Amino acid sequence: MFNKRVKIKELLASETTGQEVVVMGWVRTFRNNQFIALNDGSTNNNLQVVVELGMLDEPTLKRITTSASLKVTGQVVASQGKGQKIEVKATLVEILGDSDAEVYPLQPKKHSLEFLREKAHLRFRTNTFGAIFRVRHSLAFAVHKFFHEKGFVYMHTPIITASDAEGAGEMFRVTTLPMDNAPKNEDGSIDFKEDFFGRSTNLTVSGQLEGELAATAFSEIYTFGPTFRAENSNTARHLAEFWMIEPEMAFYDIEDNMNLAEEFIKYLIRFAMDNNREDLEFLAQRLTEEEKQLPQDKRSEMGLIEKLEFVLNNDFERITYTEAIDILLNSPAYKKKKFQYEVKWGVDMQSEHERYLVEKHFKKPVIVTGYPKAIKSFYMRENEDGKTVAAMDILAPGIGEIVGGSQREERLDKLTKRMEELHIPADEMWWYLDTRRFGTVPHAGFGLGFERMVLFVTGMTNIRDVIAFPRTPKSAEF
Amino acid sequence: MFNKRVKIKELLASETTGQEVVVMGWVRTFRNNQFIALNDGSTNNNLQVVVELGMLDEPTLKRITTSASLKVTGQVVASQGKGQKIEVKATLVEILGDSDAEVYPLQPKKHSLEFLREKAHLRFRTNTFGAIFRVRHSLAFAVHKFFHEKGFVYMHTPIITASDAEGAGEMFRVTTLPMDNAPKNEDGSIDFKEDFFGRSTNLTVSGQLEGELAATAFSEIYTFGPTFRAENSNTARHLAEFWMIEPEMAFYDIEDNMNLAEEFIKYLIRFAMDNNREDLEFLAQRLTEEEKQLPQDKRSEMGLIEKLEFVLNNDFERITYTEAIDILLNSPAYKKKKFQYEVKWGVDMQSEHERYLVEKHFKKPVIVTGYPKAIKSFYMRENEDGKTVAAMDILAPGIGEIVGGSQREERLDKLTKRMEELHIPADEMWWYLDTRRFGTVPHAGFGLGFERMVLFVTGMTNIRDVIAFPRTPKSAEF
Repeated sequence: MFNKRVKIKELLASETTGQEVVVMGWVRTFRNNQFIALNDGSTNNNLQVVVELGMLDEPTLKRITTSASLKVTGQVVASQGKGQKIEVKATLVEILGDSDAEVYPLQPKKHSLEFLREKAHLRFRTNTFGAIFRVRHSLAFAVHKFFHEKGFVYMHTPIITASDAEGAGEMFRVTTLPMDNAPKNEDGSIDFKEDFFGRSTNLTVSGQLEGELAATAFSEIYTFGPTFRAENSNTARHLAEFWMIEPEMAFYDIEDNMNLAEEFIKYLIRFAMDNNREDLEFLAQRLTEEEKQLPQDKRSEMGLIEKLEFVLNNDFERITYTEAIDILLNSPAYKKKKFQYEVKWGVDMQSEHERYLVEKHFKKPVIVTGYPKAIKSFYMRENEDGKTVAAMDILAPGIGEIVGGSQREERLDKLTKRMEELHIPADEMWWYLDTRRFGTVPHAGFGLGFERMVLFVTGMTNIRDVIAFPRTPKSAEF
Repeated sequence: MFNKRVKIKELLASETTGQEVVVMGWVRTFRNNQFIALNDGSTNNNLQVVVELGMLDEPTLKRITTSASLKVTGQVVASQGKGQKIEVKATLVEILGDSDAEVYPLQPKKHSLEFLREKAHLRFRTNTFGAIFRVRHSLAFAVHKFFHEKGFVYMHTPIITASDAEGAGEMFRVTTLPMDNAPKNEDGSIDFKEDFFGRSTNLTVSGQLEGELAATAFSEIYTFGPTFRAENSNTARHLAEFWMIEPEMAFYDIEDNMNLAEEFIKYLIRFAMDNNREDLEFLAQRLTEEEKQLPQDKRSEMGLIEKLEFVLNNDFERITYTEAIDILLNSPAYKKKKFQYEVKWGVDMQSEHERYLVEKHFKKPVIVTGYPKAIKSFYMRENEDGKTVAAMDILAPGIGEIVGGSQREERLDKLTKRMEELHIPADEMWWYLDTRRFGTVPHAGFGLGFERMVLFVTGMTNIRDVIAFPRTPKSAEF
């Protein structure tokens, strides 16, 4: 058994002194041949290890470089330095692994986020990414905790799917057929009966339809898994592979759905605030620093912590799509022709419109409901007006759409009619329609893009910085 | 807002009577035009709803069929019946959704597991699958809780990957190129620079290598995500898509690794025992019933609950591969030539050998370490004998291999030498090797196949029965 170590986070949290400890981690800095800032990833706060002058020989001292790994045995003593209550006075310093300062890519200085994206395998060792991924962890845990405590059942819906009915976007093909010599049918088309699954298969764009199957047995379920879009969108908001949370609830209408989504988002934020205060404060400071480079009017009106507190302490605004369009049409921005895209009932809102609503008009998260039927998916429940559906989008400041959901169309006749109109083949969807044939129930659900939530809570602005190894057009490194 | 309902699990757990409640769910049975067994998926225990004679007209009574969905308003009263403390005396019964008894596929009788696999969209509505998926949920939650409490960071490693170095098995290609007309290079090979990611990509077989990158920053991380094998294995133990948990820990050796894995498995079992007692008792009974069809000597020696208690209360056996081979060579089974496959040092053990060790010889979970280098992966740490590696497999009764892991080779020279021997291109693995170049540390990790764990805890025998929508050769339904 390897020697028992104490984690730096625990050590720094305790104020006991005098005991002997073993700590292990990576060197962040080494000052005056005497003060090692040691980090083990449990917190951004480094442990100060004090090496007495003369204790280590010159060659050993030279090996204590940034990112070298150490095992330190020593005594916990009260610290003389500022900002730390305790430090470790080393009695033994063992170098576990060297790190050649000449070639180690991350120097103890500020690197750009772009540069660090190319070093995604090492960026976890920086304060910024240490904080981001500990917050991401907490948010993921909070997702499970929230639903578990409410009695929801976690479902793993399939990643590989033959269903392409949702039409949520371009899909990736999954195949074991040879690309240069795929078997063909007599008419020249590819013979997918020869493929691994005996049919054409893709990566899922959503677990919702399968989630509905489970919800009509367990009442309340959720998914949390990877989803995929083969869209050639090279933006700061899109990923080809991202994680999504999709709760689906029997016996919920659109209002229940809104209530759950709002409670859920606030729960996640509260959990991170309670469990990652130091990391969030670090990220808040980072954001403030970053925004200093921007002109005054482009800077956030609130600091990160302030923004999160504000979201926690205020109800989300709830408006209909029709009301949203009215607000936009009456806005100074519209009148001054500042919008690039059309504002018109029946046309989908663009990012600029959504941002206007949440950032300029309401200055808080907004839930928009009652979208025109024509711009929403076939499974959304038709409202009594016959023109709109019980859809809901939640728009967040700085992020835009963070949640998309709806009450589902539980009436078999309306659902099949809508599928016909949209040329969705009912025979491929027999299993989905069965839920409406056998004990159909009012039900609703939504999807939360997990990375967008992490962006919102960490104050980061590029989605590639909140997932470990981003998958984007022309890039699948690591 | 839809009318507030109380969940049946909560209602049955309380002994308060007299209050008015609203319950919703699906009809399991309807006896004597008077007693409705209502289920909402929160528990296998049905709520008895009593309809007074004459309260509903004949046409309505006829609509109360298996799987019809109801909203019932009524008063909670003490039950006269056996096995239930309370029941609900209906004052209002609303039918939310009909279920035509003539066509509804699941009759209130026992269906075979094979039949239910074809109705995977409805099988959640049976007692068996209700229990299985609630237990699966609990195990998944326990995974997150275990690691969260220990300070591990949950990492989402990539699903789509360009890395194919692990060699864990056949892979699925992910592509957006046209199958019948993929662009080609001058030499006739497919031009993957034109593909979505600008290179050839596959579905991941393991998140381990990326997990190691994160572990060398956060010390302790874990993954829990889908993994894939394009193997044409149509067995009761294999899936093309399955979920895996892969913790990876800096500053751990193989013994620390074994200790963590054993503690982890016991934690999961304990969590299910504490939180899903009723479901496990149901599954235990199901197993006993099922095994009645088997000859005496094929039946389990212990009931399901007894088996789980036994695993909790006993240390896993820990032996080396060399010891395992000796045991096999000296076994009555070997001497009577009952093994189909060769038993010889240097040759991988087959399922029959593993089962002999855990089911006949030790009768409990066994951790086997020190496998011959030649039959294990390149990244496993070479032992001092130069012949074996610090690998570990955990074998469980009835399941076989449930965990595979190792201490990783942290010495750059040994690792690159091994990669050369196995013709693994170092230039494609630069990011992996960087962890050994910059502050390398002793580290270890393992993978737990989640579905195999669910099999073990539920006593089910076919892996297709413990994942919602199994993906297997020639099958990707739903």
